[in-house]
Formats: sequence, structure tokens, C-alpha cells
Amino acid sequence: MQILAEYTAKIDNGLAAINFPSKPDRLYDPLRYFLTIGGKRIRPILTLLGAQLFDVSIEKVMPQAIAIELFHNFTLIHDDIMDAAPLRRNQATVHEKWGQDIAILSGDALLIKAYHELGKIDPNYLPKAFALFNKTAIQVCEGQQMDMDFEETQDVTIDDYIEMIRLKTSVLLGCALEIGAIVAEADDKDREALYNFGQHIGIAFQIQDDILDLYADADKFGKQIGGDVIANKKTLLYLTAKSNASLEQIEQLRQLEKEGDLTLKIDRTRQLFDQLGTKEICQERMSEHYDQAMTYMSEISASDEMKQPLLKLASYLMHRDQ
Amino acid sequence: MQILAEYTAKIDNGLAAINFPSKPDRLYDPLRYFLTIGGKRIRPILTLLGAQLFDVSIEKVMPQAIAIELFHNFTLIHDDIMDAAPLRRNQATVHEKWGQDIAILSGDALLIKAYHELGKIDPNYLPKAFALFNKTAIQVCEGQQMDMDFEETQDVTIDDYIEMIRLKTSVLLGCALEIGAIVAEADDKDREALYNFGQHIGIAFQIQDDILDLYADADKFGKQIGGDVIANKKTLLYLTAKSNASLEQIEQLRQLEKEGDLTLKIDRTRQLFDQLGTKEICQERMSEHYDQAMTYMSEISASDEMKQPLLKLASYLMHRDQ
Repeated sequence: MQILAEYTAKIDNGLAAINFPSKPDRLYDPLRYFLTIGGKRIRPILTLLGAQLFDVSIEKVMPQAIAIELFHNFTLIHDDIMDAAPLRRNQATVHEKWGQDIAILSGDALLIKAYHELGKIDPNYLPKAFALFNKTAIQVCEGQQMDMDFEETQDVTIDDYIEMIRLKTSVLLGCALEIGAIVAEADDKDREALYNFGQHIGIAFQIQDDILDLYADADKFGKQIGGDVIANKKTLLYLTAKSNASLEQIEQLRQLEKEGDLTLKIDRTRQLFDQLGTKEICQERMSEHYDQAMTYMSEISASDEMKQPLLKLASYLMHRDQ
Repeated sequence: MQILAEYTAKIDNGLAAINFPSKPDRLYDPLRYFLTIGGKRIRPILTLLGAQLFDVSIEKVMPQAIAIELFHNFTLIHDDIMDAAPLRRNQATVHEKWGQDIAILSGDALLIKAYHELGKIDPNYLPKAFALFNKTAIQVCEGQQMDMDFEETQDVTIDDYIEMIRLKTSVLLGCALEIGAIVAEADDKDREALYNFGQHIGIAFQIQDDILDLYADADKFGKQIGGDVIANKKTLLYLTAKSNASLEQIEQLRQLEKEGDLTLKIDRTRQLFDQLGTKEICQERMSEHYDQAMTYMSEISASDEMKQPLLKLASYLMHRDQ
């Protein structure tokens, strides 16, 4: 997708242009490192496209787009500690390279730096953008806490799960878009519709992620197939299967969680999911959110032509195979 | 000190009035807990006094005072993880009670909540207050990193140390005062002088802290005498002694760091410090910063009467014995 590559490069340039102080180097080296290990930069691109939708140049929202990406990376650095993840984008995580204390502190510094970039906005737009950013940031923390809570309970409903992914990942997509719209002085109705578009695209995207974990084409998928199954994660696939399973099938699921032969574990889980039509039910739910996103988009008072880049990006995100 | 108790109660009431959501409880319970285990609330009181100095009511800056205290508590929660501290104000630390992951995440949430409270400011003052808050917050992270770095090197100068405490603790005092002055629409010159007053009071206060660790009256001091000595911390006492010591005395200091008998370790260290006049040299340096603070205060265009509460607080902080 041509436009995506172009915009990713613009964000990468913006990140590279951040002039972190040289000292203390053990505070800033981890940030310099982490911001260069890649990523598609979807969130900040949404800020650029959110402004462009209302005919405002991307240069005018670049610092706010950068703020969104810095915030996202702050969450990654801290989440990686909590997940004890050794790798991120096939590179060592910050806590793996510098230790946990530095990962905590440099993550903190990155969150503050995100606010600093946000503050480069025209003062007229600051109160609105600041309030939205704060609301979103706290929601992302709530989502992360829910995700951690879910690891310790069997008692997770599909609605709980959707609410968790809404908070943990989707509100930031809505926020990213809306900040673009704030700088573009879009009216309240348009801003709200754009936010909701982003939120539903985010939920659909995350469901897609859950499905791809088990059903992606192994040749194209960047990581191990079935990682969520191995980790016994309560993804939408799992919760959907469970909610449709017989008592006997629930018992099978429980046994599979303890299965030590991982290839067998993945294959049997997939078979069980297939018997229950799990993938199709999840795809249905994904489509519902995608359709809701499209309905919100149709309510926005911009021309179809202006909407094209955002619609293309949404479609790309839904039809990826990795 | 009557006024201090009164203002502490006002801040405590303000903190108690924060309506944290009930869910997820493992995100918000740690914050409800941590904000009620006490503290003198010096920093937010400075915000109140900074506004009052220019004849603005404390009600007008209460949310910003609360923001300062929330920020301070965020740093405590994360610092306690890094220090592996089991206790804070004689109560269990957050990571001790809920585990490290929750301590990281609830600390993050508290930082965001601090920004949220800051955002309740009149939009006219927001850009200035936000910029100052961001600058200060990142400096505090830099100070914390320097403090951690100092643990791993012998190569710390007295100037390095003063710069570390300036960043880690003093800039927040300056910021707390200046935010009060921003809301009070004080002019640039007065705001800057007030900030510098706070910064130098902060450095003097921290030096006082270092001295009290070893020289406080054991009956009045709230914690163990000599805690910094036991931990081989490079405090101003230590660095001053080292910079004045003969090669033989430096060797003695080095041996004392390994001494297992802690009473002996503390007594011998104090004796060595006394031989070198360490306490007096540090008191001298403390007085220099206190005097600088007073010079800045004298430059502020407010009446002597209006300055009284702040001067009383500064004097109280310098003459405490705990």
C-alpha cells in the first residue's frame, strides 16, 4: 500500500528528528533505540489522515501524530515488562537490554515526552486535545489492567473481552483520528463520528489479530502460528468456542490447556474450534464492527473523495494476512 | 506549625474527594491506598501559597495543587519499585502489596491523572502551566536516572550530586510555586524569582535531609539514624568527606563501606566525618542555598506581609529535626 509506506516514512522522519538530550544516556538511549526498531506507525498516520479528511495539511498535525506514537511506545515498553517479553519486533525489549528499572523510568519519560509533543499544538486547540488525550490514556491503562486481570480468572465473558480490547487498543485509534480533526476544526458531530469510526475499526482490527493468530497463512505470518493457544490466552476465538461448547467440549478445552505437545495442542484446538464454527462467528463479529465503522464514516460531512485515504487504510487493515 | 496543619488537611480533603472509578479495582485500589498513607503535602501547599502570595484564593488553584501531589506520588510508587523498598511512611509500598506489574501500571495511571487535574485550569493559563509541568516532569526523571547511575560509579562530584538533587527534588518545588503564580497572573519576573526561590529551598531542604540522616536527634527522628551510611549512599556528607579526606582516610571510608557491624559502621563513619568537619561544611552549603532563596524572594514584588506564610514555611523546613 503505497500511501502507507509514504506516511510511515514521514512518521519515522518525525521520530528521528526528536532531539533527546545526550544525558543521562541510560535514560535516553533506550528511547532512541526503541523508536527505531520499526512498526507500521498506524496510529500517528490516523492523526495525519484525520486532519487531511478536513483539508488540513499533515504538517500542521505532525507533532500531535508524534505524540500519539510516543504514547503508544510508552505503553509497549511498560507492557513488555509486565509480559516479561524478551522480544518486540524481533529485537530485544528495553527491560531485556537495560534492565527493568531503566525500562520503567524511560517509559515514564516517554509518556511525559508524548505530552510535550502534544503541547506543540495551537493553544486554541490545546484544552480539547489535552482532555481527549488524558481520557484516552487512562482508558488504555484500564484496558491493560483488565487484560492482566483476565489471566487470573476463568470468568471472562465475550462482552468483557470486547470492552477490554476497546479500552486497551481501540480508543487510541479513535483519539488519534479525533486529534487530527480537532486541529482541522471539524465540528463536534464530525469529530465524534470520526472517533467512533476509529474505535470500531480498532475493535475489528483486534478481532482480526485474534483470528490470524491461529488461521493465518504460515508462510506470510510474521510470527509463530498459535502463539495465543500455546499461552492459553483468552482470546475471542477461545471465548467464542467456550460459549458454544458442550460440557464435554469444555472439558476437552481444559485438557488442551495442559497439553505439552505444542503441535498437537494447536492442531486439536483448531479442530475443536472448527467443529464449533468459531472462526466464522468471530469473523461475523469483526464484520459487524467494520460495518459500524463504515456507518460512522458515512455520517461525516466530507466528500467521498476526501474519505478515500482513510477508507483505503481501513480496508488494508482488515485484509492483511500478517 | 499551625498553618501547615491546616493546609495539609485541605490537601488531604482534596485528595479524598478524587472520585476514582470502582473498576478495574486492582488499578485504582492501589491509588486510593497510597494517597491516604500520609505525608506533609509540602509540594501542593507551595502551589496554594504561590497563588496566595499574589492575592489569589487557594480554591482557584486547588486542582493544580492536587496535580502536583499526584505527580509526586507517581514518582514515589515507581521509585519504590526501583529501590525495592518494602515500606513508605511505615506502610507497605504498592509493589509490596499488589506486586510489581500493578505498581508500574497504577503509577502510570497516577501520572495521567495528575495531568487530568492540571487540565482543570483556566484555558488561558493552560499552555504555560502545561509547558512548565512537562519540563519539570522530565527533569525529575533525569534526576532519578542520575541517582541510579551514581550507585554504580565511584566517580561522582559534589557538583554532580547537587545537580542530581536539583533535578530529582528541587525543580518540583519551583514548579509547584510557579503554577500558583501562573494562575495568579504574576508577571514573568516574579514567576521566575518564585521558581528560583523554590528551587534553592529545595536544594537546602535536601542537604538538610542528608545531614539529618546521621546527625538527627534519635528520639525525634522518625526513622533509623544512619540509614544512608548503612546503604553506602553517596550523600553530600559522604562526598564532602571524601573530597577533604587524605588518602589514608579515603581508605578508611572504603573499609567502612564493607563493615558488617552496623553500629560500629555508623559510629566510625560519624567520627571520620567529624574529624573532617563534614557536617559544618554541608551546613554552610545549605545556608548558601537558603540565602540564595531569600535573595530571590526579596526580588518578588509582593508586600512583606504577603510573603510571611511562604517565609514561615521555608524557615520551618530548614529547622525541622525529623
